[in-house]
Amino acid sequence: MLKKYIIGIDLGGTNLKVALLDFKYKIRGRKNLNTREFTRKEELISAIVDSIHAIIADNKLAKKDILGLGLGLPGPVDSRNGIVHFFPNIPGWKNVGLKKNLSRKLGLPVFLDNDANLMTLAEYRLGAAKGFNNVVCLTLGTGVGGGIVINGKIYRGHANAGGEIGHMPVNADGPRCNCGGYACLESYIGNNRILKEARGIFKRNITLEEASELARTGNKKAQGLWIKMGRYLGVTLSGIVNLLNPECIVIGGGLAKAGRILFDEVRKTIKKRAMSVQAEGVKIFEAALGNDAGFIGAAIVVKQNLAQ
Amino acid sequence: MLKKYIIGIDLGGTNLKVALLDFKYKIRGRKNLNTREFTRKEELISAIVDSIHAIIADNKLAKKDILGLGLGLPGPVDSRNGIVHFFPNIPGWKNVGLKKNLSRKLGLPVFLDNDANLMTLAEYRLGAAKGFNNVVCLTLGTGVGGGIVINGKIYRGHANAGGEIGHMPVNADGPRCNCGGYACLESYIGNNRILKEARGIFKRNITLEEASELARTGNKKAQGLWIKMGRYLGVTLSGIVNLLNPECIVIGGGLAKAGRILFDEVRKTIKKRAMSVQAEGVKIFEAALGNDAGFIGAAIVVKQNLAQ
Repeated sequence: MLKKYIIGIDLGGTNLKVALLDFKYKIRGRKNLNTREFTRKEELISAIVDSIHAIIADNKLAKKDILGLGLGLPGPVDSRNGIVHFFPNIPGWKNVGLKKNLSRKLGLPVFLDNDANLMTLAEYRLGAAKGFNNVVCLTLGTGVGGGIVINGKIYRGHANAGGEIGHMPVNADGPRCNCGGYACLESYIGNNRILKEARGIFKRNITLEEASELARTGNKKAQGLWIKMGRYLGVTLSGIVNLLNPECIVIGGGLAKAGRILFDEVRKTIKKRAMSVQAEGVKIFEAALGNDAGFIGAAIVVKQNLAQ
Repeated sequence: MLKKYIIGIDLGGTNLKVALLDFKYKIRGRKNLNTREFTRKEELISAIVDSIHAIIADNKLAKKDILGLGLGLPGPVDSRNGIVHFFPNIPGWKNVGLKKNLSRKLGLPVFLDNDANLMTLAEYRLGAAKGFNNVVCLTLGTGVGGGIVINGKIYRGHANAGGEIGHMPVNADGPRCNCGGYACLESYIGNNRILKEARGIFKRNITLEEASELARTGNKKAQGLWIKMGRYLGVTLSGIVNLLNPECIVIGGGLAKAGRILFDEVRKTIKKRAMSVQAEGVKIFEAALGNDAGFIGAAIVVKQNLAQ
């Protein structure tokens, strides 16, 4: 009896996304929950377990049809030992042995990694960065995550905690960041920061989707907002371009939907500020796999580790 | 007849250092010239050629005793093809085929690389970073150079132009840098910038050596200067620690001689600002090979490429 499906989970500060994928990474079923409904760590772990049982049942499958579970997580994790170091945007998680906990509760093989590493892996293997060897990926959401491909492999760093582009400083002085640092990129262009900035500009509550739509239809204030965000992003990426001299940078996550106005400003800032050799050699792409990149990457890891 | 010597050159914005090394990287002879005496590119190339002939003659050797020449250069170079992209601090160099030019003039095999890559290679193979696998090196001088070791190999990037730590932005807005960018680390802690800052503080011309000495003997103004510089350096390194999660960072070059006051502030800033997992895992070392690291690295490259 051959196992034919993989479960991929993409846990964010706002959404808990669960998907059932086949071995070609086609999505056969999905479930969305609100991460914030589960304030305690144990509640969130139970919600993950319940949602997996539910997606298996909804698709008229049994546990024996599932090869394994892959999880993308919003913070630094030790993927080798399956330990969550902490989540900058979800309180109550500190050195949690999540792999062991979930595999015991589920009776399934479990693999976990930083969500941005998995998005990077998915975009590198199947998406916008396919065919490139030195790649930097960003995912812009509640948090700003990053992943690095060096010579065709995800670069993890000494303690499996590398790639945190969102926590590179934009300025020497600046606002305190959720990570404990100061003036990090995330504290300038994380969703909550942009929403606050947008409220200041429009003197009312406004969603990021509306701000994007307004910019597209010519609203100067909305355009100014995205240009400001694109410039912050471009400043940080100029430094990364000079440091890592990558072939391409892939930008995904909710914010990437702001589209051309954001990407044009990022490209312009890198061209203006990065060193000429590095700036000329780098392509800036929008992510190709959209919101699904996280659990596609999670499924790739499961298949890489387990499939014959 | 066995060749037994290597010539290593370390070209900086201020000094042109030439050394004769044996196969154990012991320095058997050296020569120092002032780079600024040679304003045209052709003059500087002639000075390099003459100094090589001179160091061979001074040591009563002949060209047949020399395995090859290695050059460390102060800017982005294509080490594979032996091309200088440009030098931020020496005008008149743009896409120069220096390897071909010198090997024709000298009749010797020539290898060239970024000076910071060679310093990094030397510190990694024989110095402060020996035994570590993921390493970041900085050299603080007229320019601020950097090199990266990833999984035991120098990381060069897509166009051999990676590692430019000195050209990562400290701020979103700030002074124009020699590289064409803005607010780069080098524009805050490059020697010339510090000298200018020191003149402002002490209302007279003062050398960096004197400013270091004053700090050591308790002068508060001098200590303030080095703490300020250490903080800028620490801000940039916090970003690199979060991005690359290295095991150790090695700091060398003239500025590193400021010693403990600078290093303490760098360590303090990283501890305060970088993410806890990455900050706890990183060691900050002073370079072990001092001013000789550049040409030792150059000699390592020659021997790696040519010795049996």
